Amino acid sequence: MSKGNARQLILGAMMFFPAGEHISSWRHPVSEAERLLDFDYYRNIVETAERGKFDMFFYADELYVWDRFESSVAQANSIRPEPFTLLSALSVVTKDIALAATVSTTYNEPYHIARKLATLDYISKGRAAWNIVTSQTDEEARNFGKDRHLQHELRYERAKEFVDVTRGLWDSWEENALLFNKQTGQFADRSKLHSLDYKGQFFNVHGPLNITRPPQGHPVLVQAGASEAGKEVAAATAELVFAPGGSLEEAQRLYRDLKGRLGKYGRSEHELKVLPYLIPVIGRTADEVAERVAIVEDLTPESLGLDLLSHYLGRDVSGYPLDQPLPFIPEIDGFNQSHTNLLKIREWIQEENLTLHQLYKRAANQRVFGGTPEQIADYIEEWFTKKAADGFNVAFPHLPGALHDFVELVVPELQRRGLFKTEYTPGNFRDKLGLAKPANRFAAARDKESIRI
Amino acid sequence: MSKGNARQLILGAMMFFPAGEHISSWRHPVSEAERLLDFDYYRNIVETAERGKFDMFFYADELYVWDRFESSVAQANSIRPEPFTLLSALSVVTKDIALAATVSTTYNEPYHIARKLATLDYISKGRAAWNIVTSQTDEEARNFGKDRHLQHELRYERAKEFVDVTRGLWDSWEENALLFNKQTGQFADRSKLHSLDYKGQFFNVHGPLNITRPPQGHPVLVQAGASEAGKEVAAATAELVFAPGGSLEEAQRLYRDLKGRLGKYGRSEHELKVLPYLIPVIGRTADEVAERVAIVEDLTPESLGLDLLSHYLGRDVSGYPLDQPLPFIPEIDGFNQSHTNLLKIREWIQEENLTLHQLYKRAANQRVFGGTPEQIADYIEEWFTKKAADGFNVAFPHLPGALHDFVELVVPELQRRGLFKTEYTPGNFRDKLGLAKPANRFAAARDKESIRI
Ligand SMILES: Cc1cc2nc3c(=O)[nH]c(=O)nc-3n(C[C@H](O)[C@H](O)[C@H](O)COP(=O)(O)O)c2cc1C
Ligand SMILES: Cc1cc2nc3c(=O)[nH]c(=O)nc-3n(C[C@H](O)[C@H](O)[C@H](O)COP(=O)(O)O)c2cc1C
Repeated sequence: MSKGNARQLILGAMMFFPAGEHISSWRHPVSEAERLLDFDYYRNIVETAERGKFDMFFYADELYVWDRFESSVAQANSIRPEPFTLLSALSVVTKDIALAATVSTTYNEPYHIARKLATLDYISKGRAAWNIVTSQTDEEARNFGKDRHLQHELRYERAKEFVDVTRGLWDSWEENALLFNKQTGQFADRSKLHSLDYKGQFFNVHGPLNITRPPQGHPVLVQAGASEAGKEVAAATAELVFAPGGSLEEAQRLYRDLKGRLGKYGRSEHELKVLPYLIPVIGRTADEVAERVAIVEDLTPESLGLDLLSHYLGRDVSGYPLDQPLPFIPEIDGFNQSHTNLLKIREWIQEENLTLHQLYKRAANQRVFGGTPEQIADYIEEWFTKKAADGFNVAFPHLPGALHDFVELVVPELQRRGLFKTEYTPGNFRDKLGLAKPANRFAAARDKESIRI
Repeated sequence: MSKGNARQLILGAMMFFPAGEHISSWRHPVSEAERLLDFDYYRNIVETAERGKFDMFFYADELYVWDRFESSVAQANSIRPEPFTLLSALSVVTKDIALAATVSTTYNEPYHIARKLATLDYISKGRAAWNIVTSQTDEEARNFGKDRHLQHELRYERAKEFVDVTRGLWDSWEENALLFNKQTGQFADRSKLHSLDYKGQFFNVHGPLNITRPPQGHPVLVQAGASEAGKEVAAATAELVFAPGGSLEEAQRLYRDLKGRLGKYGRSEHELKVLPYLIPVIGRTADEVAERVAIVEDLTPESLGLDLLSHYLGRDVSGYPLDQPLPFIPEIDGFNQSHTNLLKIREWIQEENLTLHQLYKRAANQRVFGGTPEQIADYIEEWFTKKAADGFNVAFPHLPGALHDFVELVVPELQRRGLFKTEYTPGNFRDKLGLAKPANRFAAARDKESIRI
């Protein structure tokens, strides 16, 4: 078990789209696009990640088919297995790697999610994590009886309540509440079972949960919001935070910002780990790097690239000339998708004066970093040692190939430098990360009570 | 593949409580009560069922801890893994047996459930089934922001809509909608993708589903309601129906009743299979049978037995003398739990004049059938040949032991008599049952359209 204060490089293997990070990853020459609903495809990927000693397999999720545009159905891939069903099956064929399920707090009920995460934690013997997201689009709302996506601020308020309810449900049963006494017929010690009786703005949940406390106490909480509201939720509750990447200085600023917010929630710095996004395109030589980056950058057809930009901006850009900058600055006010993303694109428009062609290419290929294994290891080392990152959430331009390259080429280099573990440490995911098992709120309240007496 | 009209005995292995069918199964001397959250416990059970050539592993579910009574927390077991998370993991370690997940239509959203069942169907290669239930208690309502359980009639209306939406979502993508054309950049044929645009009394769902059509077209639909409303839902949509058991004549009546309702939905008799409930207590000799039945009948402590009866009746019976009949007839009007169950208990009260002691014992031990392997095979054979059943949903007084006995002792006897298969037939669950793959509603509509032209 790593001690709280000794920093250890953490690596997550991220799957946004099943064929890779990129919206057009399925089209990469070596992608295995036709296998996206074949369990062995995922099994191979997660086994490879485990061979590379990745700490976590992170599985993204969205609740819709992106059918806003002609191109987005015809050229992009919105098909994916459902997270719990997939990760639970993967837990059977792995041993050490943690499995992070993305779950939206906007379109779910905490009782269901608390149960599923607890069950995944049991089945995987303490390897469950929850990527807490608030969802992003009106398309998602329309699959759940709403016309519009919940407004940005309300989504985060709902998220806070959702997490609180879920954690409360996980505490329903104190440790050793189950007696299994066949002789007396006592199955459980009733005094160690607690109803939550939660009444909030969004949720009204009685409890108790019909499964005992997960092996980790609570599965590890992961969060990816980067807006002001997102950062507060992260500081209050998250244990791993996915950061958007950007420049070293930006990343250091966000790192300090996030760690600086912990104090007011009574948390210390090592209790929240910051993992920026990284999409390495790995080549053995500079030429191979250039060649491979070019392949990735050319994957997205122009129609899809423009529509993706229109999506990000909430405004149709398809009529504008490609060789000139956009003649408007997109509005933040009233915009209900990711603010973080919109702000970044605004910066490119305002500060770099990119043409529309350059702009959509940039937007479609954010965070791609081409390099040799040494260069990628340098990048990781610098960010880690200069406190821009506690590790990385590594995404792959195509799967399974780019993950395979990372495991064969970059991981050994990181290990040679003494930056990355060569064996998993024993224990559950919390143990491996040096995170304490959360106290049970009901047991803690009672202990406090009895001290007072 | 069995042909539609050749009747084949179907056997489901049912897990209501993880330790067995009985509310006190955990207390059976050979139960493995402490392993109820250990994946290998379930793995062993489902592997044993597969060894016995069971057609299906059926996993029940409830969305609450039964904490209505002192005894119900302290003496009963409300702890269970969540179905999707459990069954998906089990699909990795099995090959032929179908996996039926119980999902409530009252406290879920069709988009989530359609995705999860489709994913389970992919991961298991066509072995997913859905036990459609409407949930039963106010305790469940209170975990989902409601005070009371949805009223009986409304629950079935909601169930009908829920199933319709789910089936519509499964049809979102026609076969061969995905092109995977890396050269042209065409991922999908847009004309083969359909939005459901459903607007009903309970649901408003746009679609499309973000996973393609499941291998079976639609996972097999299972249903267990026995009230008038329940039977109509079954006749309209279910492919397997769990029947409550009872006498041979009652079962034959229900069998004919259900099959007789199919015509008006354009369905034929072999498209719906009736599987009564059976809880065999197996002994090698008459003495062993008697001894084993006595153990099962004594599992439930008196306090729990009385509270269970109070629960079934919706009225507290704990104050009445044990050696006399109850001095009242429980009311059906306004009762919002299972009507079928209440009617049966009323019958025992009115027609048999049981004492309270006899009554709670009967209620706690419904459907237990003690016998030697030959007697149990006789029972199954008679019900099957006399058209009271197309097979059985076999529940076990304790797990894994009683399942093990059934596989070792009863299955070979059924096979010797030529009643039960000795090998699985190839194909997915529908193929094995001789059920056709459902037509895609959108493709069917288009085909009709083009014929008209
Ligand atoms: C690395 C990373 C992964 C994400 N994964 C998902 C995801 O799987 N599903 C989702 O709906 N949103 C996902 N998001 C979006 C975030 O949940 C959040 O909505 C977005 O970052 C905007 O945050 P903001 O509203 O605080 O600006 C992800 C974001 C990042 C940076
Ligand atoms: C064999 C069998 C299994 C059942 N499994 C479940 C279950 O897992 N979860 C549940 O909520 N109800 C379950 N039920 C209850 C039924 O869904 C239904 O609520 C009950 O039979 C009452 O039906 P009625 O309202 O039509 O009388 C089951 C019933 C039977 C007969």
